[in-house]
Amino acid sequence: MKPAFILVRPQLGENIGMVARAMWNFGLDDLRLVAPRDGWPNPAAGPAASGADRLLDEARVFPDLPSAIADCHRVYATTVRPRGMMKETVTARFAAVQSHELDAQGLRAAYLFGPERAGLETEDVAHADQILTIPVNPDFSSLNLAQAAVLCAYEWFQHVDETPDAILGGDHGGPASREALDGLVGHLDAELTARNYFRPSHRAAVMRQTLRGMLQRPGFTEQEVRTLRGVVRALCQLPNGIALPRRSRD
Amino acid sequence: MKPAFILVRPQLGENIGMVARAMWNFGLDDLRLVAPRDGWPNPAAGPAASGADRLLDEARVFPDLPSAIADCHRVYATTVRPRGMMKETVTARFAAVQSHELDAQGLRAAYLFGPERAGLETEDVAHADQILTIPVNPDFSSLNLAQAAVLCAYEWFQHVDETPDAILGGDHGGPASREALDGLVGHLDAELTARNYFRPSHRAAVMRQTLRGMLQRPGFTEQEVRTLRGVVRALCQLPNGIALPRRSRD
Repeated sequence: MKPAFILVRPQLGENIGMVARAMWNFGLDDLRLVAPRDGWPNPAAGPAASGADRLLDEARVFPDLPSAIADCHRVYATTVRPRGMMKETVTARFAAVQSHELDAQGLRAAYLFGPERAGLETEDVAHADQILTIPVNPDFSSLNLAQAAVLCAYEWFQHVDETPDAILGGDHGGPASREALDGLVGHLDAELTARNYFRPSHRAAVMRQTLRGMLQRPGFTEQEVRTLRGVVRALCQLPNGIALPRRSRD
Repeated sequence: MKPAFILVRPQLGENIGMVARAMWNFGLDDLRLVAPRDGWPNPAAGPAASGADRLLDEARVFPDLPSAIADCHRVYATTVRPRGMMKETVTARFAAVQSHELDAQGLRAAYLFGPERAGLETEDVAHADQILTIPVNPDFSSLNLAQAAVLCAYEWFQHVDETPDAILGGDHGGPASREALDGLVGHLDAELTARNYFRPSHRAAVMRQTLRGMLQRPGFTEQEVRTLRGVVRALCQLPNGIALPRRSRD
């Protein structure tokens, strides 16, 4: 029981197509139209759907709102600003949570979207159980139809999708072993010691901690540790390839 | 330190305008363009911005990506699908959390968006610290530029806005007092008792509980309770306005 998106008296075919695309981007496909201004089908819808044509082919057209929501159990009226009606106003995010709860009970939610120019009439909103509002910049609240639809669909999909918040990409085998990292630290330390880098001597311990911290923190892979050792070796050579003379250690 | 939205080699002026509108819908206004295909300004951008023209007027144009991100501290490359690069991939939602954390430290995030046709090149992504992915339907992942931008801006705004998940709208003074509600329950009970509604008698207590539950649950206001008492009174009259004879109670 995925939510139905119901466009009430939509004006432009292009917007109907963009809503279809936005819905299918987020796995929704129950598109319904109430009295579309220019009839249906509308030739401008297909190009705007950019591949979500199936939703347009399967869209159902209704003469009025009550018939469009007849098989739905919870109806949300999307408006940018809450109206003065005594209805519960929920965010798109919270409506998504509720829609999945309804789905779990075998019940269907409907999201109503009004005409582009002025949005839903108060009479339309009266048919809804709740008002769905998308919080926007109060200084610039004119959210277009496709944008409102994509945000509602996106929020719904957040509860389907299991993408982790953050994950390291690439086929890298994870961070290097501590042994490999210690090999790098020891290599660098030996070359720097040979060059009398750790001065003054009372700062040497802190300087070594700083370097170790910088090399540990990024979680370099084995390959990256090998790369860094190659860089250290390269830097220890003269530009023409002859090794620099090492100072004898004290 | 609001995030900058950086359009890398954008193709259509209309899309630049739609991104500006999406940004300002959610309170963002630092728009930057890297080598826009058709130069800048672009006459198609203004109408699509639908009132967010200030962002277009103030948009900064850069010849290349490094100069566009020079003053930024964290760079996100938006792509629909994670690439095989060893970079952390974060969701738009998580990037919004991080952007606010950066802001709290006086640091600026940048969101990179690629050209409409093919998205960011691998070379562009290499300049980014993290890959930002918007989880979408794997069967239909072609999210357009303005839609990707509105979702990123929306997520950022969720941490600015304080709209509650759900709130009852309207100037209604809250639910009726229990005394008023009990008045309604008593009124209805008396009229129903007079009409011998509570049958069979061993079910009467349960029937009364059911009615009380139905009247308590909605949280009717004082005005709504008065309305319901008027309805009960009306129903107790003959259609032509003459009161029905009441049965004498046993």
